[in-house]
Amino acid sequence: METMQHHAQHVQICFDCAAACEHCASACLREDHLQMMRDCIRLCRDCADFCKMCGSLTARDSEFMMKFMVLCADVCDACADECSKHDHEHCRLCAEACRRCADDCRRMTVTA
Amino acid sequence: METMQHHAQHVQICFDCAAACEHCASACLREDHLQMMRDCIRLCRDCADFCKMCGSLTARDSEFMMKFMVLCADVCDACADECSKHDHEHCRLCAEACRRCADDCRRMTVTA
Amino acid sequence: METMQHHAQHVQICFDCAAACEHCASACLREDHLQMMRDCIRLCRDCADFCKMCGSLTARDSEFMMKFMVLCADVCDACADECSKHDHEHCRLCAEACRRCADDCRRMTVTA
Amino acid sequence: METMQHHAQHVQICFDCAAACEHCASACLREDHLQMMRDCIRLCRDCADFCKMCGSLTARDSEFMMKFMVLCADVCDACADECSKHDHEHCRLCAEACRRCADDCRRMTVTA
Repeated sequence: METMQHHAQHVQICFDCAAACEHCASACLREDHLQMMRDCIRLCRDCADFCKMCGSLTARDSEFMMKFMVLCADVCDACADECSKHDHEHCRLCAEACRRCADDCRRMTVTA
Repeated sequence: METMQHHAQHVQICFDCAAACEHCASACLREDHLQMMRDCIRLCRDCADFCKMCGSLTARDSEFMMKFMVLCADVCDACADECSKHDHEHCRLCAEACRRCADDCRRMTVTA
Repeated sequence: METMQHHAQHVQICFDCAAACEHCASACLREDHLQMMRDCIRLCRDCADFCKMCGSLTARDSEFMMKFMVLCADVCDACADECSKHDHEHCRLCAEACRRCADDCRRMTVTA
Repeated sequence: METMQHHAQHVQICFDCAAACEHCASACLREDHLQMMRDCIRLCRDCADFCKMCGSLTARDSEFMMKFMVLCADVCDACADECSKHDHEHCRLCAEACRRCADDCRRMTVTA
């Protein structure tokens, strides 16, 4: 019970991050200075997929979820670093969501 | 602004439903009377994928999201109908999440 | 047997199209005239996800696969139309893969 | 050019494995002795998602693809080990596809 609660929180953080990344990638594609957003779009695309998969594996209680979280945390860090270089509201919100997800992936693997 | 708020709520409902379906499919696979859970596992698997995609397309503000929601609502209904036949807590929670997602897909397509 | 063969071919066409779209979106993001590639990146992203899901539902023999194919064919058409406006090799290959996938989605729904 | 060819082959092996896993999970769910197929369904579900993501990251030429392949190879091994315990044609074909994908993930990471 404790454990499911614990997992449910991580699942939500992952999917929130995926949503922020999907939104940020689309919003970046509509920005005026598109050249500057190349890396942001690229990383948001990867990070969205990693976080959707991380949320899914956690909700499934998959035996591979812990190893996946180690990698997912690195992807979230890379996306947060890039997003935090830009002033757009969608980039700021995405960076925050990515930091939270990276932290929670690490919390999960430490307390496992 | 109004619209993004509106969309953010739908995205969360979709991903909540995906999480409930992923969890229900895994939990069903561990149940004693596995024969009775065949359809539930099968439908949860499809519904999880539909809801993850519905959440993603909505977060992206994709031009295909409305047509996708029409189909997603039907998948959610089918999964809710099957889950509501079973007494397991995970099935009950999944049926609720599926009903909510089906309703919200329809609300989105009507107010579009 | 006949049917599985039939399905296996569609699954491969879907995943080939997904691969072409994933590659095209990434390659477009590296092009010099990025402003011209906005729609191509956006549509390739959606089309990649639709085709992965179409291949998955078909391989599963999901009850929702036929309805999904109707929608997937439209997404493939939209992506093919956009890709065919550009001279890049990755766009040309992607347009071809999308046309093939749209046609095969329609063949599947007609012969169902 | 050499490199893209190299990558294209890996992408196809990943998606072939994903297709075999999706099909095997569905076919297992319809088998008479369902109790014996629990682990096979569970692992095929994870392996299908890992291989779709591995194929996508490779087609994108993502900076995270090599680290992902290391993990994907382990998931493919686990699925192949389980599938090879069963006599069903779909399990045999799935085990073969998983072995091929595990080997090719390792080939990619070694030659990187």
